[in-house]
Amino acid sequence: MAISNIRYGEGVTKEIGMDLQNLGARRVCLMTDKNLSQLPPVNAVLNSLAKYGVNFQMYDNVRVEPTDQSFLDAIKFAKKGEFDAYVAVGGGSVIDTCKAANLYASSPASDFLDYVNAPIGKGKPVTVPLKPLIAVPTTAGTGSETTGVAIFDFKELKVKTGIASRAIKPTLGIIDPLHTLSMPERIVANSGFDVLCHALESYTALPYNMRSPCPSNPINRPAYQGSNPISDVWALHALRIVAKYLKRAIRNPEDREARANMHLASAFAGIGFGNAGVHLCHGMSYPISGLVKTYKPKDYNVDHSLVPHGLSVVLTSPAVFAFTAQIHPERHLEAAEILGADIRTARIKDAGFILADTLRKFLFDLNVDDGLAAIGYSKADIPALVKGTLPQERVTKLSPRPQTEDDLSALFEASMKLY
Amino acid sequence: MAISNIRYGEGVTKEIGMDLQNLGARRVCLMTDKNLSQLPPVNAVLNSLAKYGVNFQMYDNVRVEPTDQSFLDAIKFAKKGEFDAYVAVGGGSVIDTCKAANLYASSPASDFLDYVNAPIGKGKPVTVPLKPLIAVPTTAGTGSETTGVAIFDFKELKVKTGIASRAIKPTLGIIDPLHTLSMPERIVANSGFDVLCHALESYTALPYNMRSPCPSNPINRPAYQGSNPISDVWALHALRIVAKYLKRAIRNPEDREARANMHLASAFAGIGFGNAGVHLCHGMSYPISGLVKTYKPKDYNVDHSLVPHGLSVVLTSPAVFAFTAQIHPERHLEAAEILGADIRTARIKDAGFILADTLRKFLFDLNVDDGLAAIGYSKADIPALVKGTLPQERVTKLSPRPQTEDDLSALFEASMKLY
Repeated sequence: MAISNIRYGEGVTKEIGMDLQNLGARRVCLMTDKNLSQLPPVNAVLNSLAKYGVNFQMYDNVRVEPTDQSFLDAIKFAKKGEFDAYVAVGGGSVIDTCKAANLYASSPASDFLDYVNAPIGKGKPVTVPLKPLIAVPTTAGTGSETTGVAIFDFKELKVKTGIASRAIKPTLGIIDPLHTLSMPERIVANSGFDVLCHALESYTALPYNMRSPCPSNPINRPAYQGSNPISDVWALHALRIVAKYLKRAIRNPEDREARANMHLASAFAGIGFGNAGVHLCHGMSYPISGLVKTYKPKDYNVDHSLVPHGLSVVLTSPAVFAFTAQIHPERHLEAAEILGADIRTARIKDAGFILADTLRKFLFDLNVDDGLAAIGYSKADIPALVKGTLPQERVTKLSPRPQTEDDLSALFEASMKLY
Repeated sequence: MAISNIRYGEGVTKEIGMDLQNLGARRVCLMTDKNLSQLPPVNAVLNSLAKYGVNFQMYDNVRVEPTDQSFLDAIKFAKKGEFDAYVAVGGGSVIDTCKAANLYASSPASDFLDYVNAPIGKGKPVTVPLKPLIAVPTTAGTGSETTGVAIFDFKELKVKTGIASRAIKPTLGIIDPLHTLSMPERIVANSGFDVLCHALESYTALPYNMRSPCPSNPINRPAYQGSNPISDVWALHALRIVAKYLKRAIRNPEDREARANMHLASAFAGIGFGNAGVHLCHGMSYPISGLVKTYKPKDYNVDHSLVPHGLSVVLTSPAVFAFTAQIHPERHLEAAEILGADIRTARIKDAGFILADTLRKFLFDLNVDDGLAAIGYSKADIPALVKGTLPQERVTKLSPRPQTEDDLSALFEASMKLY
């Protein structure tokens, strides 16, 4: 498995100008979004660039929950700028957009679909060299600073998909917990749910030695390799941090210990799922986001309706883990215990229900919308949600339990109402 | 922190020919030692190289516990061969020798002392590009496949020292637990002690944010950065595996589960200490090895006297942790508990003694020589042992508790007899 370089510490962002000097960068592309461009994390980066005389252009037009169109806009900027290094300051939307901009600017003759995951795109392997990319995450959820994945909403097909290649992994992730102090409550919650599901899904994913067919050449191994003894370490550690700190981080923006720990947990879970992969919660989340109707979440200062990624992932989690637990029930029970369940008298065959109940209680305590119905979906939408899940086989095939279309329908139906 | 790529699984060695093809290698240098050259791990590599038609030359003259002279001999071979990739099959001695050969063949104008750690050498930063190096560890101890460190015995000065740079870290570590099945009992034990000390020392090392002075530019950060929240994860996980599996792995060569877990623990601890560093057990071990008199360990088929690295490290561990525990006693107590101590009624001020007693009991059960006296040292040797420790400041300064020469004398004296 490959793991990105990360640097952790309060205030380490101030070194970024030196890092860029060390890389010999002469034309830097700084990417962020409109909200962040006024906030302390971007200011810290700008100050460092100024201090070390780094020449840069800023692109602050990243869309929260990016689309093919918003990716293309950023790619156009990157191609025109002929940059020799990239800096992404933001959540997963910014970092993912920057990965795509770096990739296509480095491979200018490629068609956009060339690198998009099959079967939607061609899923070609990346063979061109990319420029260095330094990612400065400002949320505690995506783990994008540690992964080779960039996700976007393919508007035409109304489905989320992405690009997955080790080649687009950031050169360095700067994890500066000071940046999380400006996160509003619901952004902390929703990005925390992403960490929770990264950890739970990668820990319960199909084991690496049960995937088939086994690629004949190691170079053809997918980025997502299935759960393995190394990703397990990261997944469990991240889950323990979520259990201990997520509620505190949501409740109190001044709780530096909790917010710093969630910031690290995001990277830890990212390293875990970036190697092991995710499965059904993520696979089903893409149509939940892609088919959004009029839902506008609290605390997100955007002019379009959206289902935040972490929310779209976590709403199906009770149903998903009740479904997958018959494979490796002991791992499901272990996860429930870490999240606070008393399993002393639990029966192994109840592992799925116990984990599902534990998750429901966790979400209820955190005031999460009561299921898919609460964000605008009804039974009539289930066929479209299922249809949008089918192309996500890159992740759904990592589910420990294979699933039919009927199974997917039942999982969406069971997720309409949680409490 | 930077982490090497590793690949894990029974039989994954057979892919190495493909990996070298994928790297475009045309002239490969295969390094190993005389014993291993006849054993299954090297055979597995040779079979794969033949199958994929990889052109190579073999150097099987690596010295177990290498010296400056043995490094220079391997470097000469590497320079002459003009290789474009390296494969190291063996324990730490082989992997470290191969790192040095790759470094100096890539920097042919450099003097040998240029890259050797200061104050013994000049400790110059490595700025030349190196060739890819694939490491195939056959012991479960060194973790060298994950680190940027190469250690050797500087004969003239009678002291062990090394080269430390991220640049010499292997490109890929292939962790194939099949290779550990041919390890004799004492090699399993001694290499396991190295894992134990890597975990204990990196978990108790000076915290990363208490090192000083802080380098003004991140490029000047040392490879060993002090304990940090990421290395802690690896150290604790490795320690738990050692507690559960080391005795089983030593007792029974057929216990594949135990040997596979120790093989992974070696890499985990390597990733931990490769970022956090080690401290007094390692710093004091170098003169213990370097000043060896006539000791010849069981199960090592060599024609010179030597103190195996893992043994030289572990013999001082009870004294060292009794000494360091007054800083972060709770970490010392936690380590003792993981190693089996009942700490329910323990007093925090006794943490050092509790961990020391736990280690003594662990070593006694594993039939380890009774202290430095049992491997040929007496009180009269202490001044020379202290003198040999002083130049090891790269690691000794990571001790959580600063130490005087008198402290070092006392630690060696307390390590003369363990039981």
